[in-house]
Amino acid sequence: MTAHELKPSQSILTLADIAKIVSAELKGDGSTVVTGLATLANAESGQVSFLANPVYKHQLADTRASAVILDENNSAECPTSVLLCTNPYLAYATLSHYFEFSSSVAGVHDSAVVHDSVIMGEGVSIGPNAVLQQGVVLGANVTIGPGCVVDSFVTIGDDSTLHSNVTLYHHVVLGMRVNVHSGTVIGADGFGYANDKGKWKKIAQLGSVVIGNDVDIGASSTIDRGALDDTVIGNGVIIDNQVQLAHNVVIGDHTAIAGCVGIAGSSVIGRNCTLAGAAGVAGHLVIGDDVHIGMQAQVTSSISEPGSYASGTGLMPTDLWRRNVVRLRRLNDFYRRFVVLERR
Amino acid sequence: MTAHELKPSQSILTLADIAKIVSAELKGDGSTVVTGLATLANAESGQVSFLANPVYKHQLADTRASAVILDENNSAECPTSVLLCTNPYLAYATLSHYFEFSSSVAGVHDSAVVHDSVIMGEGVSIGPNAVLQQGVVLGANVTIGPGCVVDSFVTIGDDSTLHSNVTLYHHVVLGMRVNVHSGTVIGADGFGYANDKGKWKKIAQLGSVVIGNDVDIGASSTIDRGALDDTVIGNGVIIDNQVQLAHNVVIGDHTAIAGCVGIAGSSVIGRNCTLAGAAGVAGHLVIGDDVHIGMQAQVTSSISEPGSYASGTGLMPTDLWRRNVVRLRRLNDFYRRFVVLERR
Amino acid sequence: MTAHELKPSQSILTLADIAKIVSAELKGDGSTVVTGLATLANAESGQVSFLANPVYKHQLADTRASAVILDENNSAECPTSVLLCTNPYLAYATLSHYFEFSSSVAGVHDSAVVHDSVIMGEGVSIGPNAVLQQGVVLGANVTIGPGCVVDSFVTIGDDSTLHSNVTLYHHVVLGMRVNVHSGTVIGADGFGYANDKGKWKKIAQLGSVVIGNDVDIGASSTIDRGALDDTVIGNGVIIDNQVQLAHNVVIGDHTAIAGCVGIAGSSVIGRNCTLAGAAGVAGHLVIGDDVHIGMQAQVTSSISEPGSYASGTGLMPTDLWRRNVVRLRRLNDFYRRFVVLERR
Repeated sequence: MTAHELKPSQSILTLADIAKIVSAELKGDGSTVVTGLATLANAESGQVSFLANPVYKHQLADTRASAVILDENNSAECPTSVLLCTNPYLAYATLSHYFEFSSSVAGVHDSAVVHDSVIMGEGVSIGPNAVLQQGVVLGANVTIGPGCVVDSFVTIGDDSTLHSNVTLYHHVVLGMRVNVHSGTVIGADGFGYANDKGKWKKIAQLGSVVIGNDVDIGASSTIDRGALDDTVIGNGVIIDNQVQLAHNVVIGDHTAIAGCVGIAGSSVIGRNCTLAGAAGVAGHLVIGDDVHIGMQAQVTSSISEPGSYASGTGLMPTDLWRRNVVRLRRLNDFYRRFVVLERR
Repeated sequence: MTAHELKPSQSILTLADIAKIVSAELKGDGSTVVTGLATLANAESGQVSFLANPVYKHQLADTRASAVILDENNSAECPTSVLLCTNPYLAYATLSHYFEFSSSVAGVHDSAVVHDSVIMGEGVSIGPNAVLQQGVVLGANVTIGPGCVVDSFVTIGDDSTLHSNVTLYHHVVLGMRVNVHSGTVIGADGFGYANDKGKWKKIAQLGSVVIGNDVDIGASSTIDRGALDDTVIGNGVIIDNQVQLAHNVVIGDHTAIAGCVGIAGSSVIGRNCTLAGAAGVAGHLVIGDDVHIGMQAQVTSSISEPGSYASGTGLMPTDLWRRNVVRLRRLNDFYRRFVVLERR
Repeated sequence: MTAHELKPSQSILTLADIAKIVSAELKGDGSTVVTGLATLANAESGQVSFLANPVYKHQLADTRASAVILDENNSAECPTSVLLCTNPYLAYATLSHYFEFSSSVAGVHDSAVVHDSVIMGEGVSIGPNAVLQQGVVLGANVTIGPGCVVDSFVTIGDDSTLHSNVTLYHHVVLGMRVNVHSGTVIGADGFGYANDKGKWKKIAQLGSVVIGNDVDIGASSTIDRGALDDTVIGNGVIIDNQVQLAHNVVIGDHTAIAGCVGIAGSSVIGRNCTLAGAAGVAGHLVIGDDVHIGMQAQVTSSISEPGSYASGTGLMPTDLWRRNVVRLRRLNDFYRRFVVLERR
């Protein structure tokens, strides 16, 4: 289910519809009309809510929602109609798409600049002032937002969406059901230079970027093209905003990369990893599968063991921080003095 | 005073004009013509300078400025005409707008794509190749720069400016006197997913972004739309470049957020806070009013006490850093060995 | 050699051609036709590879490349034709440009919006939907990509390229052979405010940005205009993606700035420095020549000594990290307890 299939006109459902959509058991009146989703605290009559995180359980008793999606543990205490299922958060995720706004319209806007050689599948939508250069190939139901620039010989698979003002460089390949948010740039040159007696000599970046199926990429992220081989993003990868992936990075399937992460050149990240916000990965590393990296973490070596890793000093009142940092700068000396004392 | 009111032709003033503009007492010839502002060190005849930071006091004696804005403490030593006031830096801020360049022109450029349903106040300027979709509402004197994309049902208050190549997603609301710099994206989807047996299931982001009055947002920043409720930016908030504000973040009035800061989902920041460059705030935290966060700080817990907080190790020569980090990784062990020794 | 001179049709060379291009001694058949470059591991017949990093020496014996660029130390062991030179990496950098794809075409696209007053040198290329405002001056062979916005009175030197969707604010100056990648914004307002009883009063940013010759700037970077004086980028500087340079920053010649670096206002960086990914530099600092800053480093003081500097805690398993951080927050107390013990 992707955004372009959902129209505002579809967003009126009955509780019976919803029970079917999320495979829940309905306890209540199936003919009740629902026009939206909301949190337990803010839901009004005519809206459905959900309870997935026990932190919010205390809000259940007072909710004004017409129905709540929840699991067996919370069913008895619910004052409203119940949509009973085993994974309420997943049910909410599924249902959410039925209330999503979409304004894209099939067809090519008059103001778009589309090269004669562009090949399009059925149901393609190209927004105002988009630019598609020579040899671009678009699968069925692809949406290209206003102001996007899709350079020569780019290939985009079925049901993919570029939101407004996305830039794809030449020869970039996107799979099916890929969503790219505004401001993101895919396929710019990697940062490769040879040093010639103090001057930087640019190395042309001859690889491309290949992105798998079911990939989401947030706003203002950058994924550079490879130096010789391609930069590769696996299937089912999700990437947040302002992420920087350098040339020849490889991201394994179903890995999640949060906002402001930077991964330096040629590093390979495994499958089913998570990188929290602003984590940094040095170049030429290999991170295995199922590795979880904390916020702002400093990854300077390869990681072969699955598990959770972190960096940083935590937060301190600034005065205390200053005193501690002074000691930290001499920690090795301090330790050596300690060892001398310990041995006495 | 916003940029679009200022024209290059207005940038010739006399010292008498300036004294009036900044509420200063003039000691000197009010008919002297001024064509610009400059630092004490670089000012030439015909320019006004200012002394706000005592660090630059030594430059006063040799300045070639036609006049200097300063306070009583420095008046006696000034070799030029004096514009005497209590807050020279604020006076400089006020005066600076009279010398600002602006090229925006009221009216809709022929190349802009504006949906028939768009409603515009008086004095609106829409630049070349801008795109405004269905149902957009623009207040008086709004400027939309070249290449901007303003998606369906966006509302922008009076006297606001989008510089070139800004992207606003559907239903985003901007208050009055909001300035947004190029490359910034407001209203892209928040990073919300349910995990379904190792695969990420996207959650449609049904909230929007609501931005108050008198808000400045720098270049290439991203503010995501909320999952269910809105992401909210208060009045008088100032946001620098490359800032990432995730879904459902709430920023209190008059808070300042410096470049490269990232704030994760649902965190609430108080009023009159400052976040220095590249600080990171984890999700679901509550930061109170008057909290000041240092550069690159790692905020992993809520903060209720006003004050100044910091993180990081400071900078060391790399060899020393390596030795200290080795000890830091074993700091807890080291401490426990110390306690054993201390108890003996 | 810049991208726009290189056409796909030029990318068939003989080994004799290549020997001449990279000033190498050819050991092999000069008439062998070469159609591309590849790594030792992936090269096929008809491709040239290179050996610069000893890590890859073991791949030499099995390479299927038609020829390998290498130095005397590895010549004897090469099973293929040899292109012998003293700096194989530099030779690779030089050769790489002969295989680079370019689709830019001289001339102004019909859909571009170019003000009558714009002055252009010979061979200029302006892509679809680009916008050039009043008084812009373009040197010879300048390429302006699709969707770029070049505001009033910008000057761009010969042989410079703006890739798609670049934004230059008014009066910005670019030297010769400057390359700017997509999404980058140059000349937005610096983050300057005076605080007026708790409210932020914007300071108009009256300086500009001046960029030297032979500068490369990656994607989605931001370089702010100066408050009074200009922000200045020296000759031969290379800047990666998502870099933030605040107002009045000065970067010395031939300095390299990696992805996600942020430099706060008025800091001055010397010549031939390197800043690794996500390093942060506080405002008003002076960093001398030949200073090398590590990834995510926290630069809070000026640096006068050349050398290598670093910050951060390194990476730890999260459980261990938590225990160590608890101790780090009390490191100063710990040290003082130690001193007491040591003195006994």
